[in-house]
Amino acid sequence: MSNNNLITPRKLSGFMELPPYKQIIFDNMVGKIINVYKNNCFMPLNTPILEYTDILMAKSGGEIDKEVYHFSKGDNDLCMRYDLTVPLARFVAMNTDTISFPFKRYQVGKVFRGERPQKGRFREFIQCDADIIGIDSLPITADAECINLIHETFEALNLDILISISNRNILFGYIDSLGYKDKTQNVLTILDKLPKIGKENAFKELESLEIDREDCDRLIKLSALKGDFKDIIEEIKGLSDNILFQQGVNDLLTLSNNLEAYNIPKDKYILNLGIIRGQNYYTGTIFETLLPSHPEFGTICAGGRYDNLAGYFTDKKLPGVGMSIGFTRLFDLLDNNEMLGNFPLSPAQLEIIPLGDTLDKCLELSTFFRKNKIRCEVNYDNRSFKAKLKDANKKDIPFVMVVGENEVLSQIYTLKNMFEGVQENLNLENCLERIQKFLKK
Amino acid sequence: MSNNNLITPRKLSGFMELPPYKQIIFDNMVGKIINVYKNNCFMPLNTPILEYTDILMAKSGGEIDKEVYHFSKGDNDLCMRYDLTVPLARFVAMNTDTISFPFKRYQVGKVFRGERPQKGRFREFIQCDADIIGIDSLPITADAECINLIHETFEALNLDILISISNRNILFGYIDSLGYKDKTQNVLTILDKLPKIGKENAFKELESLEIDREDCDRLIKLSALKGDFKDIIEEIKGLSDNILFQQGVNDLLTLSNNLEAYNIPKDKYILNLGIIRGQNYYTGTIFETLLPSHPEFGTICAGGRYDNLAGYFTDKKLPGVGMSIGFTRLFDLLDNNEMLGNFPLSPAQLEIIPLGDTLDKCLELSTFFRKNKIRCEVNYDNRSFKAKLKDANKKDIPFVMVVGENEVLSQIYTLKNMFEGVQENLNLENCLERIQKFLKK
Repeated sequence: MSNNNLITPRKLSGFMELPPYKQIIFDNMVGKIINVYKNNCFMPLNTPILEYTDILMAKSGGEIDKEVYHFSKGDNDLCMRYDLTVPLARFVAMNTDTISFPFKRYQVGKVFRGERPQKGRFREFIQCDADIIGIDSLPITADAECINLIHETFEALNLDILISISNRNILFGYIDSLGYKDKTQNVLTILDKLPKIGKENAFKELESLEIDREDCDRLIKLSALKGDFKDIIEEIKGLSDNILFQQGVNDLLTLSNNLEAYNIPKDKYILNLGIIRGQNYYTGTIFETLLPSHPEFGTICAGGRYDNLAGYFTDKKLPGVGMSIGFTRLFDLLDNNEMLGNFPLSPAQLEIIPLGDTLDKCLELSTFFRKNKIRCEVNYDNRSFKAKLKDANKKDIPFVMVVGENEVLSQIYTLKNMFEGVQENLNLENCLERIQKFLKK
Repeated sequence: MSNNNLITPRKLSGFMELPPYKQIIFDNMVGKIINVYKNNCFMPLNTPILEYTDILMAKSGGEIDKEVYHFSKGDNDLCMRYDLTVPLARFVAMNTDTISFPFKRYQVGKVFRGERPQKGRFREFIQCDADIIGIDSLPITADAECINLIHETFEALNLDILISISNRNILFGYIDSLGYKDKTQNVLTILDKLPKIGKENAFKELESLEIDREDCDRLIKLSALKGDFKDIIEEIKGLSDNILFQQGVNDLLTLSNNLEAYNIPKDKYILNLGIIRGQNYYTGTIFETLLPSHPEFGTICAGGRYDNLAGYFTDKKLPGVGMSIGFTRLFDLLDNNEMLGNFPLSPAQLEIIPLGDTLDKCLELSTFFRKNKIRCEVNYDNRSFKAKLKDANKKDIPFVMVVGENEVLSQIYTLKNMFEGVQENLNLENCLERIQKFLKK
């Protein structure tokens, strides 16, 4: 029955849609991330995907970024969320009276940015955020907790990372103490490019801001420092008595002690005074994470301290610190670089195949195995027995149980271990035992 | 510092946003549902929230339902998905060549319907869908698998349900055999209302369709039948030799045998020839689930068999059977009726409180407990020791460990079991043991 009015099925470009066998791995990894967040006693939040436009665009005074999915429905001017931070600010501002501070929340969910699609960029992607929000003040230990959370998360994902850490007040204070406070943003923009453009070009650009040659050297030298916390702190602490600068030094020292206390291995993090983080709202500690084995992936997780989460919505002062993993992009990179391990083609641990008129018995057995926490299904398909066995093999299902009419009578079943190529005739209890034993390994 | 330009933080109405302590329960329940789907070897799918309008609106020939969130961005005409079935159809049609059939997929995700907001209705809600798709044909056992999945799911959620099951071909075939095939939809509409309007009114409405009085009686009598499968099948099987009718009877008989084989308790499901299910695309088995203790909740889960999943997208014949739980609405009903049990106000199992200058030691201890899978955090807040202890108590955190300077020296710590009001001085290993033992209970 041919149909001439068929609509060609198409998916929007820039929207990830994995085949289910890859989705299993994706979900497992997200599950591990959430598990670490939970183990660190962060609370879940699930804000709507749609928000009022004036709320999401509060920062830019209502001006709508061209990347944002924006539309009207009825009388409502709506946007799809483009991050999880503004919805958090809105939630905290609405619920300040009932929240217990410090408020540790995580949110894992889709966000939407209608960028021009390009390799490795997604218009819909999953962010895994964790933030700690205080009221009036928040100890620097919260920053350490956040960095330790990054460490524990990537340890759970079995990915070797390096976390680069800095404190914005070091450069803010130093630039001020040299007398260039009004040029701070321009200086930071140039220093941010330093690894890309090199010292000579950075020097020229700084000079063009009418900064003394000696000061250009000083700024470049300071922002090129990276390595062990204690060594660098020792080296810079006498550089300036500017209050911001000294606060930055003290905070880095506390942070360093806390990170050691958490027992984060020393090769997982460094002090790197060259990291800047573009976003203006960071005000103290900043950090970014990369995979040293794949620096070309760029920053896979980042965050920092901000003075005031929700200044557009409330007069209450809500300092916080947070981190975010752009998981869809990271998964795509890992997948493209064959760093995800094997993909099992089925979630089944046991497939029961009827031979002859034994389907109902097979269904009964499957219930028994599922009650014992074995992922089990019956292949009730119309194909031949041989085709089913081949299929189970192709799908890497570890165990197959064959149930013929003799097996139903004798209650002794044929259990095939497809990985080890072993076949045994066992009663039900022994089948279960074999499977449980094998899966524990 | 007062700010006169504050924007009042607001959330869209009809969009659920739970306080985090309730979100924990919500997530736990969704996790249990997903776990059952996985144990039954369904594969995960995660389609985009946005789709091309002509794809989502294929069924209605492109006409856009007024409930759908619909807009343009750049050259693209877009919709937010309003269910998970059309995206599944689109996915299967696009990937027929690589999918292994029968394709068992689950999807748990948000869908969007801009209905007029009213009590218990949400514009954004989470659906938990599971479907089994065949190619060319699909055995009736798939229908039983789907119904067993409903049973296992609500068993995992600890909710007592009743699944009402029917087969549309019984009424289709019977109406045809009485000579009213052209009036089928009108007759079904009236019979669907039968429980509401009563037999007398149904009779009058049927009569107004110019149906013989005797046939009106017959139709009402048939659709009022509900109870044990075998009894009712025995009662009706001789009623008509219409092919559809007889196919319906045979399918119900197979289904009944399969459901018994799955060991679903007999009080969990009935044959109910009065259920109709409005949607036109169901073509065989249909089922709906309610809580007998709360019939006013209405249908909390429903589904059925359809002949062809993706007829708008492909010439291939893709019969399927599926079920769906509108979880956001169900959770809201359970919450409003105090059927969710206790809400722990924190995920923490152990809170460590420093007393004096012991913060770094506390951080170190917290890492030890988390490595041993205890959800543990340090309260590094600036409040007083007393306030922290009170807070842990209020939040129902089961264990608190107090670490003063003496404790650091002696390595004997004070562990308080807040539930049992017991306090012990123990070394680290014994603290862990006590906590693990208590949590196992």
